[in-house]
Amino acid sequence: VVAWPDVDPSSLGLGSGDVVIPGGHYQLSSSKWRRSSVVRVGGVEVGGGDLVVAAGPCAVEGEDQLRAAAAAVKAAGAKLLRGGAFKPRTSPYSFQGLGERGLELLRKVGGELGLPVVSEVTDPRQVEAAYKYVDAFQVGARNAQNFELLRALGETDKPVILKRGFGETVEEWLSAADYVLLGGNENVILCERGIRTFDHTLRFTLDVGAVAAVKRLSHLPVCVDPSHPAGRREYVEPLALAGVAAGADMLLVEVHPDPGRALSDSEQQLTPSMFLDFMRKVTAVFRASRST
Amino acid sequence: VVAWPDVDPSSLGLGSGDVVIPGGHYQLSSSKWRRSSVVRVGGVEVGGGDLVVAAGPCAVEGEDQLRAAAAAVKAAGAKLLRGGAFKPRTSPYSFQGLGERGLELLRKVGGELGLPVVSEVTDPRQVEAAYKYVDAFQVGARNAQNFELLRALGETDKPVILKRGFGETVEEWLSAADYVLLGGNENVILCERGIRTFDHTLRFTLDVGAVAAVKRLSHLPVCVDPSHPAGRREYVEPLALAGVAAGADMLLVEVHPDPGRALSDSEQQLTPSMFLDFMRKVTAVFRASRST
Amino acid sequence: VVAWPDVDPSSLGLGSGDVVIPGGHYQLSSSKWRRSSVVRVGGVEVGGGDLVVAAGPCAVEGEDQLRAAAAAVKAAGAKLLRGGAFKPRTSPYSFQGLGERGLELLRKVGGELGLPVVSEVTDPRQVEAAYKYVDAFQVGARNAQNFELLRALGETDKPVILKRGFGETVEEWLSAADYVLLGGNENVILCERGIRTFDHTLRFTLDVGAVAAVKRLSHLPVCVDPSHPAGRREYVEPLALAGVAAGADMLLVEVHPDPGRALSDSEQQLTPSMFLDFMRKVTAVFRASRST
Amino acid sequence: VVAWPDVDPSSLGLGSGDVVIPGGHYQLSSSKWRRSSVVRVGGVEVGGGDLVVAAGPCAVEGEDQLRAAAAAVKAAGAKLLRGGAFKPRTSPYSFQGLGERGLELLRKVGGELGLPVVSEVTDPRQVEAAYKYVDAFQVGARNAQNFELLRALGETDKPVILKRGFGETVEEWLSAADYVLLGGNENVILCERGIRTFDHTLRFTLDVGAVAAVKRLSHLPVCVDPSHPAGRREYVEPLALAGVAAGADMLLVEVHPDPGRALSDSEQQLTPSMFLDFMRKVTAVFRASRST
Repeated sequence: VVAWPDVDPSSLGLGSGDVVIPGGHYQLSSSKWRRSSVVRVGGVEVGGGDLVVAAGPCAVEGEDQLRAAAAAVKAAGAKLLRGGAFKPRTSPYSFQGLGERGLELLRKVGGELGLPVVSEVTDPRQVEAAYKYVDAFQVGARNAQNFELLRALGETDKPVILKRGFGETVEEWLSAADYVLLGGNENVILCERGIRTFDHTLRFTLDVGAVAAVKRLSHLPVCVDPSHPAGRREYVEPLALAGVAAGADMLLVEVHPDPGRALSDSEQQLTPSMFLDFMRKVTAVFRASRST
Repeated sequence: VVAWPDVDPSSLGLGSGDVVIPGGHYQLSSSKWRRSSVVRVGGVEVGGGDLVVAAGPCAVEGEDQLRAAAAAVKAAGAKLLRGGAFKPRTSPYSFQGLGERGLELLRKVGGELGLPVVSEVTDPRQVEAAYKYVDAFQVGARNAQNFELLRALGETDKPVILKRGFGETVEEWLSAADYVLLGGNENVILCERGIRTFDHTLRFTLDVGAVAAVKRLSHLPVCVDPSHPAGRREYVEPLALAGVAAGADMLLVEVHPDPGRALSDSEQQLTPSMFLDFMRKVTAVFRASRST
Repeated sequence: VVAWPDVDPSSLGLGSGDVVIPGGHYQLSSSKWRRSSVVRVGGVEVGGGDLVVAAGPCAVEGEDQLRAAAAAVKAAGAKLLRGGAFKPRTSPYSFQGLGERGLELLRKVGGELGLPVVSEVTDPRQVEAAYKYVDAFQVGARNAQNFELLRALGETDKPVILKRGFGETVEEWLSAADYVLLGGNENVILCERGIRTFDHTLRFTLDVGAVAAVKRLSHLPVCVDPSHPAGRREYVEPLALAGVAAGADMLLVEVHPDPGRALSDSEQQLTPSMFLDFMRKVTAVFRASRST
Repeated sequence: VVAWPDVDPSSLGLGSGDVVIPGGHYQLSSSKWRRSSVVRVGGVEVGGGDLVVAAGPCAVEGEDQLRAAAAAVKAAGAKLLRGGAFKPRTSPYSFQGLGERGLELLRKVGGELGLPVVSEVTDPRQVEAAYKYVDAFQVGARNAQNFELLRALGETDKPVILKRGFGETVEEWLSAADYVLLGGNENVILCERGIRTFDHTLRFTLDVGAVAAVKRLSHLPVCVDPSHPAGRREYVEPLALAGVAAGADMLLVEVHPDPGRALSDSEQQLTPSMFLDFMRKVTAVFRASRST
């Protein structure tokens, strides 16, 4: 079912279901294949011309926390609710998330407020269960080249927000997207979240050049996560503004009703009032950078 | 069942099954916990004072290829046979390995020659099947922080050769080892295989400082894979010598009977005759660097 | 003459001319020392609330080329003229610039058009001669820690645009600024121009997080050079927009009347018509990101 | 005076003194130009088949300190004495060295003990004075692309130990060597001292792959400085062993009679007794890795 436009596989001695590969590590994510794509998360269009912001807590910690976060981000203009249930933590001694219970809460609270929901999966065995709850799957940096997980998501029909690994080249990132696309799932959103470099002033180095590059090399919509590279909440806004100015279609931001009490990433989650200000700024910069 | 030595969990108000965490991201892999460990792969001791070399083709391609490789590496002094069956390739369009059929061949050929076998797993769902064939599991750089896979391997009793991710800090590497150790599987071998840096003269930058560091920070045996950072076979030997001189207990090397025809990594696999020379040199440097 | 506010050096047993060092690698560039500074280049204020763009050819190649570039950048709204005379090229076989003759041309053409001029120095022995021609000295990435050059510039009273080395941490960058400031020259502008990372999709990785960081850690104005990290002209605009959105007060951009014929950096210099568009966009994003 | 072997410049329409450049950033340092070179420092041959160790304090602090260090390193088998007089320090508030007085002491103590001496220069204006005292100039990482300094050294006839910048590619390092060689000074020794990477467990990442690479790409002798990447003295020996095993012809090591009292780099300087042990080990590994 996959072939290059204007190429008849049989002309190359291949069966009709074979993949035609003109060379290079990535194909289906390439802008040579298609000029631009719009991905729908719930009813929200990503890549369609408006800036989409997904916001919510790093981790779902409980129903009250989640509802407070969701109400705040909705009031400020976020269109999607994010929240971690399966948390891939560097240390096995850190809080690992509520698992499926977290997904249930996301579904419930998102439904109440009319916000489609996004959450991370970390194992092919979680995909079937998570499918019932989420409107988009998120693949984190540590699983950016977990190809078995990507294949499993490629067999579903729900959008995949594919983060770039912190040691992954742009070419590898697009090749990873091809693992999903090859399964027939065309709904991939690329997400830049900072790479590892020698400088540790911030937690990671947001690579705005990569954002600009994948907007040209690929047809897929591009998201920026400013929270993880910032590491501290005072840096979330400037990184988000830079990402939007460089071409991002979407932002994925951590907002917590009371960050000081968060069970993870407490330093980098925005407060509801910071997020209000944040939304005003990112919207203004988005418009200015798209005006002709 | 896990606790710090000389600490009674109940003295801290914890149940007997609770984990006691004195601070830091990694605990069980720390040299504060134990001075040094020996891990047995089949009957071969790693970390016991002799240099152990595991060698064989990047990928199992067929029975003849594997038997030729196995005979050559055994003749040169390798104690373990390696070969990839589940291949995590950057591009979905590259050869993905023979899967379980590859593991069967490894088992068969290893058994004939009396060589314990090592192969990579990439998905928790493969662990049960692979357990029947391999003497040690290998976790590759792209799955270095695939925590669900690490947890699954922690529930087995076979050794895990845990590669460092190419964007992973030393602290994260040891924390990943803790994911295996916490499950009760104490048989972890750390494997340095090169990190991503700005210089691309070779494929990756072998971090000999990290080898020296984990020999001090951890009790676990340390392996070096010189093939992947080299990228070209002429660089495999100097990197292996450097790794051994820096403190490695083990080497993991790609050898192919006819590298020019290999289905993967054809540029970096050693020929049998290069491997003979290689073994002589690494043995001499190992002895010289351990003499007092 | 240098001391911490509210500290009497004699109270510490020091002479009145001694430097008081409360700790840390950098002091005078710190925002603990002063909240914010404005640096005047010719009559143009950098850091005073308006975006300042310095533009012009990578290298001064001749009077006609320079005049054409200068007229174009002035017409588009640039306030300063840049052009290289002493070119520090990676290879000794590349064009090395016109030297003092290039500075004379810059002075002449800048004078005609009423544009203050900026050019690079690479050797303390050039400082005296260059002082006669330029309104601001530029220190390039390769001399970012050439401390003898920085000391020599610290003894002048003209502004220094201090680029960050591509392997230099933020802390080292601010420490390098202190080498200039300690000499009594308070006119330092920090310039981010991309760092070396593992990804080479673009030529360097523009570190917008560092821009945001030095706006908080230091009182000095901050410039972004989008041309060198871009490497190709199509990426200059998105990087400039990102730099401005992250907080930059100034941009330093390469513009050539006929980039295809440039003797250096021909791939990354903007054409005059691209620069017109560029100026409109960066101005819009600057305003949007500063609105409250 | 410079031309490619077997090429008559006039056949290319060039004068007899012109440089013939067949392409690429570096030429004269290439192994295409010459197979291998031996550089003499005082009477000591570097690259001639024996391992050469230059050792001594990070900085010359005084005559007694220097004489104690020199006697210790000579007794242990070092052939050259190193000591810093012009110190390029990250922070202007750190000890900057004794300057020319330090060079006088080096000359005096080296002369007494029959050890040729090596010291760093950081400014073209120092070269003439330093020439009177040193047997080899050292160019540090921060001046690795200070091309005016390299040109000035290219006009002398004394050896230049050219460190690689911590953000410099292998190709740039060899191009920098060409700046010296083009002046007619053929006595360049390349020195790897660690690069900047994302991992900060040690101070820098010693790039043994680069050592192996320049042994193939260039004819110049190669030195390794294990002290700066180590950062702590316990890591100096394993890094030195790795460097020698990877192909280094020379080592440059910091040894201080009383490291705890050193005015710079006190954590990484070896004690005399550690250095004795160190020399035994590096000699054994050098021999083992060169045996055939």
